[in-house]
Formats: sequence, C-alpha cells, structure tokens
Amino acid sequence: MSIDERQHARQFVRTFFTTPTAVEGEDDSAKMLRGAIQNRGMEAPDVWVPDNEDATAPSMREEGAENIVEVVSEHGADFPGEIHPRVVWHRDDPGTRHQGLQQIMTIADPEKGAIEHIDGFVIPEVGDIDDWKKADEFLTIVENEYGLEEGSIAMSVIIESGSAELAMEELRNEMGKPSNNLQRLFMLVNGEVDYTKDMRAMTPTGDLPPWAELRHNTSRAASAAGLISVDGPYDEIRDVEGYHERMTENREKGLIGMWALTPGQVVEANKGALPPEDGYWLIEADDREVELREEDGVQVYNGDRISLSETEGGYELTVGNNTVVVDEEELEDEILDLTSYVPSLGDIVDSMEEFEAAKEAGRGAIAMTRSATVSIDGVEVDISSDRMWDEATYQALMVPVSLFQDVYENRPDQHEALAEIYSEDVVERAMEVGN
Amino acid sequence: MSIDERQHARQFVRTFFTTPTAVEGEDDSAKMLRGAIQNRGMEAPDVWVPDNEDATAPSMREEGAENIVEVVSEHGADFPGEIHPRVVWHRDDPGTRHQGLQQIMTIADPEKGAIEHIDGFVIPEVGDIDDWKKADEFLTIVENEYGLEEGSIAMSVIIESGSAELAMEELRNEMGKPSNNLQRLFMLVNGEVDYTKDMRAMTPTGDLPPWAELRHNTSRAASAAGLISVDGPYDEIRDVEGYHERMTENREKGLIGMWALTPGQVVEANKGALPPEDGYWLIEADDREVELREEDGVQVYNGDRISLSETEGGYELTVGNNTVVVDEEELEDEILDLTSYVPSLGDIVDSMEEFEAAKEAGRGAIAMTRSATVSIDGVEVDISSDRMWDEATYQALMVPVSLFQDVYENRPDQHEALAEIYSEDVVERAMEVGN
Amino acid sequence: MSIDERQHARQFVRTFFTTPTAVEGEDDSAKMLRGAIQNRGMEAPDVWVPDNEDATAPSMREEGAENIVEVVSEHGADFPGEIHPRVVWHRDDPGTRHQGLQQIMTIADPEKGAIEHIDGFVIPEVGDIDDWKKADEFLTIVENEYGLEEGSIAMSVIIESGSAELAMEELRNEMGKPSNNLQRLFMLVNGEVDYTKDMRAMTPTGDLPPWAELRHNTSRAASAAGLISVDGPYDEIRDVEGYHERMTENREKGLIGMWALTPGQVVEANKGALPPEDGYWLIEADDREVELREEDGVQVYNGDRISLSETEGGYELTVGNNTVVVDEEELEDEILDLTSYVPSLGDIVDSMEEFEAAKEAGRGAIAMTRSATVSIDGVEVDISSDRMWDEATYQALMVPVSLFQDVYENRPDQHEALAEIYSEDVVERAMEVGN
Repeated sequence: MSIDERQHARQFVRTFFTTPTAVEGEDDSAKMLRGAIQNRGMEAPDVWVPDNEDATAPSMREEGAENIVEVVSEHGADFPGEIHPRVVWHRDDPGTRHQGLQQIMTIADPEKGAIEHIDGFVIPEVGDIDDWKKADEFLTIVENEYGLEEGSIAMSVIIESGSAELAMEELRNEMGKPSNNLQRLFMLVNGEVDYTKDMRAMTPTGDLPPWAELRHNTSRAASAAGLISVDGPYDEIRDVEGYHERMTENREKGLIGMWALTPGQVVEANKGALPPEDGYWLIEADDREVELREEDGVQVYNGDRISLSETEGGYELTVGNNTVVVDEEELEDEILDLTSYVPSLGDIVDSMEEFEAAKEAGRGAIAMTRSATVSIDGVEVDISSDRMWDEATYQALMVPVSLFQDVYENRPDQHEALAEIYSEDVVERAMEVGN
Repeated sequence: MSIDERQHARQFVRTFFTTPTAVEGEDDSAKMLRGAIQNRGMEAPDVWVPDNEDATAPSMREEGAENIVEVVSEHGADFPGEIHPRVVWHRDDPGTRHQGLQQIMTIADPEKGAIEHIDGFVIPEVGDIDDWKKADEFLTIVENEYGLEEGSIAMSVIIESGSAELAMEELRNEMGKPSNNLQRLFMLVNGEVDYTKDMRAMTPTGDLPPWAELRHNTSRAASAAGLISVDGPYDEIRDVEGYHERMTENREKGLIGMWALTPGQVVEANKGALPPEDGYWLIEADDREVELREEDGVQVYNGDRISLSETEGGYELTVGNNTVVVDEEELEDEILDLTSYVPSLGDIVDSMEEFEAAKEAGRGAIAMTRSATVSIDGVEVDISSDRMWDEATYQALMVPVSLFQDVYENRPDQHEALAEIYSEDVVERAMEVGN
Repeated sequence: MSIDERQHARQFVRTFFTTPTAVEGEDDSAKMLRGAIQNRGMEAPDVWVPDNEDATAPSMREEGAENIVEVVSEHGADFPGEIHPRVVWHRDDPGTRHQGLQQIMTIADPEKGAIEHIDGFVIPEVGDIDDWKKADEFLTIVENEYGLEEGSIAMSVIIESGSAELAMEELRNEMGKPSNNLQRLFMLVNGEVDYTKDMRAMTPTGDLPPWAELRHNTSRAASAAGLISVDGPYDEIRDVEGYHERMTENREKGLIGMWALTPGQVVEANKGALPPEDGYWLIEADDREVELREEDGVQVYNGDRISLSETEGGYELTVGNNTVVVDEEELEDEILDLTSYVPSLGDIVDSMEEFEAAKEAGRGAIAMTRSATVSIDGVEVDISSDRMWDEATYQALMVPVSLFQDVYENRPDQHEALAEIYSEDVVERAMEVGN
C-alpha cells in the first residue's frame, strides 16, 4: 500500500475530545471519564482522548492511568468512537518519557481488559523524528511484551514545537523503514498553546496567534503521509461562532479534525464538518461576505453596504463607494458576480447524481444551473448561473461526500441524528454517490 | 554553472496556455490546436501547452498525441513561444506513467518532425522526488532512443499534491547528481484543483482555497533551483479584475508565470506581468488602497472614506473614524503618508537612467523626487516626496526591467504591441538600462 | 546541552542596529561608528552591527575594517550591548567570500585589541548549508590562527535567498556534527530587500512584500535550533506606527528581534518589545480593533462603528450592520465578547504572583478577574471577566517576563529607564517572578 493511502479504520476524524483522567476532591476521581465514555450520537466524538497529560494534575496521573483501565474495560466495548489515551512525554526530558512508557504499560496490560477497546496512544511534546521513533519503539516493546500484533497500536502526536513541525516533513522518508514501525502513525494534532511557548511568540492580549503556516504544514504532512490532521484546542468555550469560523478556515487548509474541550464543542465540530442542512446565498458586500436571508423564496439583502434603485431606463447599483449605472442585463451580471451559493448536502448529492448520469450517457462536462431572485432595497433581480462541471469539479465535491460516507459507516450511533438533519432520502442517496 | 542560475532560453514565463489536443465530435479533432498555434503577439503565450491530460477526454488522448505531432510539425517553426505538451502521469499509478512514456515516444519521434519545435514536456501529478526521477529517466531513454542530446528535452511538473510540494525542497540536493538529468527541469506549476483534492480541503461554496503557503513554497523552490514558477488556472474566465488581483498577489510572492485557459487570459497575463503604461497614484482610504483619478493634472479622491476641509487657520482631515486638525505643512505630511505612486515602465526607466548617471559620477545614493497635487473634497494639496535610491533600490527595480528585456528579446512578434503600449522611445531605453 | 537550548549570553535580542563603517568625504571616516558605540540606555541596541557590507561603499570597506578595529578597541569595553560586525560574503562569488575572510582576519587580530570586545560576525547573502559551513570554517581558521578558543566567535547569518531559507530547516541535523562548529550560530536575520530580488518578486509601488512565510520559517528555525530570530530593516524611517505594527506582527510569529536603521528605531524597538507601561482595553469595532480611551476611570468608545442606546426595558446595540436588542445581562455578555485587555508589565506580574501563591497553596488553576466600565454613546456598561489561569497560561506569560529579565540582567545601562517606565516596585517584582 502506498504511504499516502490512509491505513486506519477511519479516513476522517472530525472530533478529538479530551477528558481529564483523574480529578482530585471527587468521591470518584474517574467521574469525568465515566461521563464522557457514555456519550452517544452527536455528543460522542470520533476520537476520544482520556487525557493523562495536561488536563490532569501531575500528582493524579498514576491514578489516572488506572482510571482509564477501569472505565475503558467496563464501557469501552460500547463506545461508538475510537479511544486514544494521551500519556506524558517530552522531547527534552527522559524522565517524562520513561513515565510515558510506564503509563502505556499500565493501560495496555491485556489482563486488565482495556487494551482491546483502545485504538492507540497520543504522544505530546514530540521533537524531531528521532524522538518520534523513541515513542514508536516503546509501543513496539509494549506490543511484544503483551503479545499484541506489532504495529497494531496506533500512534498520534501533538505538534507543539518548531522541531516537531520540521519533523513532519520527513515522514514520507521515514515511514516504512525496516527499523521502525512508524506506519502506526494516525493523527497529527496541533497543540498551539505549547507551540506558542516554544516559538516564544507573544500577543498583546495573551490570545493565541493564528499560526496559519503551522496549520498548512500539518495538513500537508498528513496529506503526504496518509495521516489525519487535527487542529488544537479553542479556548473560548462560549464563542461558538468563533469556533465555527476556525473550523471553516481549517477545512480550507485541508485540516478537518478539531479538538473539543467540552461536549458542546463535540456537537458543534461533529456537525460543523459536514455540509449544511440547507443551502444559502452569500453576497460580497464591499469587503465582506454576508448571508442573504430567504423571505418567501426571495433572497433578501438587508445591509447598507450595497444599495440598488431603479432609474429612468436602468438601475443604479452602489457597492461600498463604487456606483454603476446599468441596464437590466448588466445588473444581472453584476449581482451574479457578487453572489455565491453554499450548497447543502442535498444540493451536492443532486448535482453529483446529475453528473454521474451525464457521464454514463457519454458526456464529460455539463452545465449546472442555479437560479435565485435577489432583493436589494426592494428591487428584485433574477439571476441564473451556469457552472460547468467536469470530472475535477466532481472529484472536488467528493471530499465532503466521502467524509459523510466515512462518518455514516463508522458511526451507526449518529444515523438517527443525520437522518433528522438531512432527511432519510438525502442520507441514502449520499451513501450511493460515487459508487 | 551554479544551480540557481536559470539554464533555459527563457528567464521568465508570463503565460502558460493549455489547449485540448483532441476534441470529439468536430470534423477536425485538432481544430483547437490548429487555432492556438497560429496566435501571434499578445495573443500568443510564452509557453504553449498542448494538453493531452485533463483538458482532453481519456478516450481521445491517443488521437491527441498524433494531433500534436501533426500540428506542431506543420506550424511549430513559426510559433513565437515555447511548446511544452502535457502528457499523462500519476505518482500512484504505474499504468498511467507507462501511458505517459508512450505519449512522449509518439510525440518525440524525430521522423514525425515535431520534436525539433518542442522545448519540453509537462508532467502532471508528480509525487516525491523519486517519482520526478522516473519521469526524468523516461525522457533520458527517449533522448537516447531518438539520438537527441541527453538533457535537451526540458521537463516541467505540476505540483498538485502535498508530497510534490515537499519534493520541491529537495531540488538543490538532487539536481546535478550523476544518476539523474534533473537539470532539465524548467517550470514548477501549481495545480490547485487537484492539490485541493489531495489535501482534502473544502470551502463552503466549492471555490478554491487561496493556498498562500503553496504559492510561497513553489516560488521559493524555483528561486533556489534556478527554475520558473507558474500559478495554476483561474477558473472564473469572466472575472478579469480577479485574474489581475491574483497576478499582483503572485508577483509579490515572486510567482510571475500565470496559467491561461483562454486566449483572453493570455492577453491579460502577457500584458499584466509588465509595468503599466501610465503611472498612477494610490491613496490609503481607511482599510483599502484606492486609485486616484487624474483630472487636469490633479489627482482627485472621490470616495467618502477620507474627508478634508479648511478650518480657520488650518485643515481638518478625517480618515475613517480618525480626525486630525493640522496646519498646511502637517497636512502635506499626512497626505504624503497616505499616498503612494505606481510607476509606469517609462517612470522606471527614467529613474534607472538617472541613478546610472549618478553612479557614473561617483555617487552611490541619490534622492528621486515625485510630486503631485492631490484633491480631496475640493481642497488641493501639493505633495512632494524624496525617495533615496541606492544600489539595492536599483537592483530591486531591475526585476521588472529584466522581465521586459527577456520578453523583448524572445518575442519579436510582440515588438509592435510593446511599442504601441509604451512608445518606441521607452522601449528602446528600457532595452539599454542595466547594460 | 540540547540543541534547542540557547547557548549564548543573550537569550533575547530586541534590537540589531547597523552603522556604516566608513563614510567618504568626512574628516573622520569613522565618525558614525564613533557616535554609535557611545550610545547608552534605550538608545543603545542589544546587538550593534558595524556594517562593512551594504551600508558602506565597496571602495571604503578596507578602511571600514580598520575603523571597526580602531573604534571598538577604544570604546568596546564600555559598550553595553553585544558587537557583531557584518563582513562581505556571497554564496555565488568566491572572490567576495575571500574578501570576507580577509576582513575577519583584519578585525579579529588580537594584537589590535578589538576582538576581545567583539562577540561574533554577521555573514550576509548565505546560500545552502554548505555555504554556511564555509563561513564557519573561516571562523574556525581565524580562531586557530589567533589562538582563540574554537567556537568562541559567534556567527549570525542574513537570510536573503530562497536557498538560505531552505537551509534553515537543516540546522538541527547539521549543528553538532564533528566536522563543523555550527554551534557558534547565534542569530538568523531576515534581509527582505535582497530576498525580494532573489525571489524576483515585484510590487506595484516598489514596496517590500510582506513575506509572512519567510518570517514564520525564520522564527521556527530559530526555535528549533536554539537561535535568535531578527526581522529585516524597515525602510520608512518616519513611520513609527508602521514600525510598531510590524513588531507586533513579528512577535505573534515568535520573531522578537528587529533591525534598526536609526537611533530612533533603536529606542522604539528596545521599548516596543517589552510589555506596555499601562494596560488598556481594546474593542472589536466591526472589522478592526480599536483602543478605548480612559476618562475618569471609564473606558470610552468614540467611534461610529458601534452604537448603543437604551430602549424601553432594554438596550439596542449595533456593531457594523448588525443590531441586537438585549437586556442588561445580555448586554454585558455582548460587550465582554467585544472587548479584550492588553496587560501592562505590572498587570502581568500581579497575575503571576497571584498564580504562584495559589500554586503554593496546592491549587492548579484559578480565575483571574478583570473588570471595567465601558461607555458607548454615553451608555455605561460594567463588565467583568473571569479568565481561568493554569500552568499553561502561566508559562505563556513567562515569555514576555523572561524577555524582561534577560534585558534587565544584561543591560544595567537600561535599569534607570526601566524603573522610570515601570516603577522600581514593578521592576523588582518582575525580576522575582518565576524563580
């Protein structure tokens, strides 16, 4: 198998949800683990990470490892997502690495009954590729010790240093060498808080920098090595809109997975990764894109950045500071240029079916028409755009559909929610497209 | 020769124009090729790419290869640009690679009379550097088979995968090794449609992501290895303004070449890469740069983001939400800070001649003065800026002049159009500068 | 010592100030050197660079090298910053490299008494890593020739080519090899003027492109290899606001050092790198962040992008085009979301002390409260935010504090200025935090 074909059960990971493994002062220090593992449907993440590192106080981590074993052995068989505990590790500290090995030994002991439900481990604070290999070697030793198949435990890493960012570029050269088992690699996860510290970066308010280049590099490395990329935590829990904006930006970079700190973020990220339930129109209003509001089948613009009025024999259209006088046909062209459509899953499936039928009938490219009536300042304009679809357009739109299919196949517990969002009919047809 | 000195006839490529090689259902399936190869002047690209890959239906590609041979052998001698057919290739599919070899064999057969007019081949969908070497080896074999000089056929690649993006970083280490002929490399071309698919990236509307980092990396690799970088296709054919914006962005990244899908885009990209015919002033109006309109020698601002009025003994200037009360001298400083000048080719040549004369007279740095009268809300302000020119300023402005000179030397068919745009005098002097 | 722990006296460099070494036509060609080396306090840079390359005419460079020797031997012992002369070098020109060696030989001659005050040399125009090794080897030879300890002369490079940008990625693999002394590396400095030329990039006005990716890559390489990153010169000397904006952007990338062309820029960059004297509030006004003005303890917004009025039983809040009607509690939430606080050094120290006390008392996370009264259109709103602080928050804010401590320890000549800016009390407490 070529290195850039994904080797694991999941082709996509929407959500990476971390939970403290042991909380001091509770009657049951494993209470949060016990709660998290019983989530189902949209509340359950694609990847659940019992976090025996930063989310858990250092003094509680020994107990945390035992808690993972206890909770996973009891409930793991029924958990709908994958389970990847995070253990401690540090590129600059052999003592921490040794503790990481011990935690894995504890958690993976087959007599304790948890490892059969555990898909892999998450290794934080890695450095260059030689450091990744040390973690890989520990997993190989654990597999050997416990009679597990070599390479069967997945390994994911948190990128939180410049050296780890650089190491990602070497994966294609290193994976597959006979002296390591790096094919076990599964997720590359950004850890922007510690990355910021390692880069010695500062913002005036203490907010995290955007790290656009890191996100590109992580996504690229995942693409090149057949892995899955996940972006780091979004601290402002209450800011749901900001969380979605970050996810949209990330998907533009090919970075589909999202860290979730709360069950609320899990729901947002599980749903947000999929195409919307209903399509909608956008209009470029001066320097920003604004969503049009549908009223009785008409797409209404209510802002004041665009104005439109009828004049004798024509129209006057103002966008920002720029005014043009146009006739009806020119007006349609102008509005067409300003607007764009965000298709729903149903829209995407419709178009793909249409294209597949055309292809079967021997046509390689067809025009897809999309029409709307747009209203600005009470003036209505009918627009209609033809977009040429060819194989490349079709392939590009297979990405969200493949994601949907991967979710549907791997998450039976979400079937009901998906049918509720998209309708049974759209779900069924989405599962057929591309086959 | 050092690896970062460009080894090919062209030092610059403005335009990379693709044409389907065989269209079904036409009397003459080579009709489009026949049309494209007869373009001259601004309608003819610097590099013409008979596209036997994505632009041509798979079932037509055998015929397409023959069409290339036929059309190029007949008209190739007179074509003013370089000719680089694109053949099929895929990093993950040996069958496709074998077809690529066969297509090259067909097209390069010297008995068919096309290869003497063909400068190289474009290889799409490459992966890591070892994959590039396979294509290079095929070209070496073809050269050997047909008695052509080893390394004489140029090779260009389309970057449409994360692995190819990473491979570009290795060129300096790999080119010049005795076991390959990678010195034949000529262009690094972004292919954003398939790159988006390979990165599994998604945008809400289905538009392509901006891929700023990819564009930087391609330009950097070209710079480091003495190659030429070209940006991928711009789908929205009607959006001429957007096409120019993309080119301006690209040139800021050192990415000068531009893919053209239509003869109209060829004209825009041929002209757009060169300095403008007339200089003009820009003003920073709040958060955007706006071009001033010249009226009777005065540079007029007509927007409402900046306002200016005379008050008793001074002026009140408002930019966005920010108002200052200033005297005349301060006003000049404020307006000077807000404005900038985009020089024409003539302006650039004037300044360079002036600097060359100063240098000859033993002065290493001189002040270049630029003056204008700016009018805002009817209030006129005279501004005058002195910009210090030293060797570095001079060298930086040599880039557009070198581009102009490279175009002029290699494209006699554009001499007339250039003289019409810039005047004979400016063209002649532009050819003298820097010598 | 691990490669990413910084090996030099300074952990941070705020300012990199270049001075011509020999100016023609003056009675004393070393006048500028003599002036610069006598700067003290905020006027003196962390790193002073007698510039025997671009700032000095080629014909004057021999004299320049002698001037460095003369001025540094006389005044170097008292200079409060480090001294790193720049010599000539070029990746593509062995003649220039040989001159570079000769200049170093002249300057480093221990009999001349300057080398004991010189910390290292700055090598411009480097290419790939093998070119860096040539410069390193020359320094080794000079050390050997003059009986200096091998590796004792620091080496810094200017990144002004695509090949040098790529070379930075190899530092972790190359430093520490027995055949070089690259551990002597100290600063990675962007040189955007020549980089722009090497990349063949062009902007319409001739301004420098932003080069966001280069800046990320330099910062990352410095982080990975334990070096210090410095951004290139900012030409528009008069534009102090622009200079600060660039520094803020840079610090977000972990690029803390800043080139200064004038003593004025030295002062701005020395102060600008440190946290502000007084904290202040920001508000997100539509698409931009605006500083609130404090009036009698109230934070006042004066712009017109946000408006607020009381209505019957509630409030109407408009941000840009978006209006919401809210009750008092919702209003507080909305304003809280729009505002953020930029802490002063004193604020940071307060919070860190509070966190340290909490940690000592066995608590791993505490809420830090920040309150303010915000006034918009005369309507006052009391806001209060709780930010959770954990070890990671604490560590992130250690970056500006470590920078402060490094400055304080290495720059006794700035103690007075620092006490004046921040107060003796804050300075003292800032030096205690984290110990």
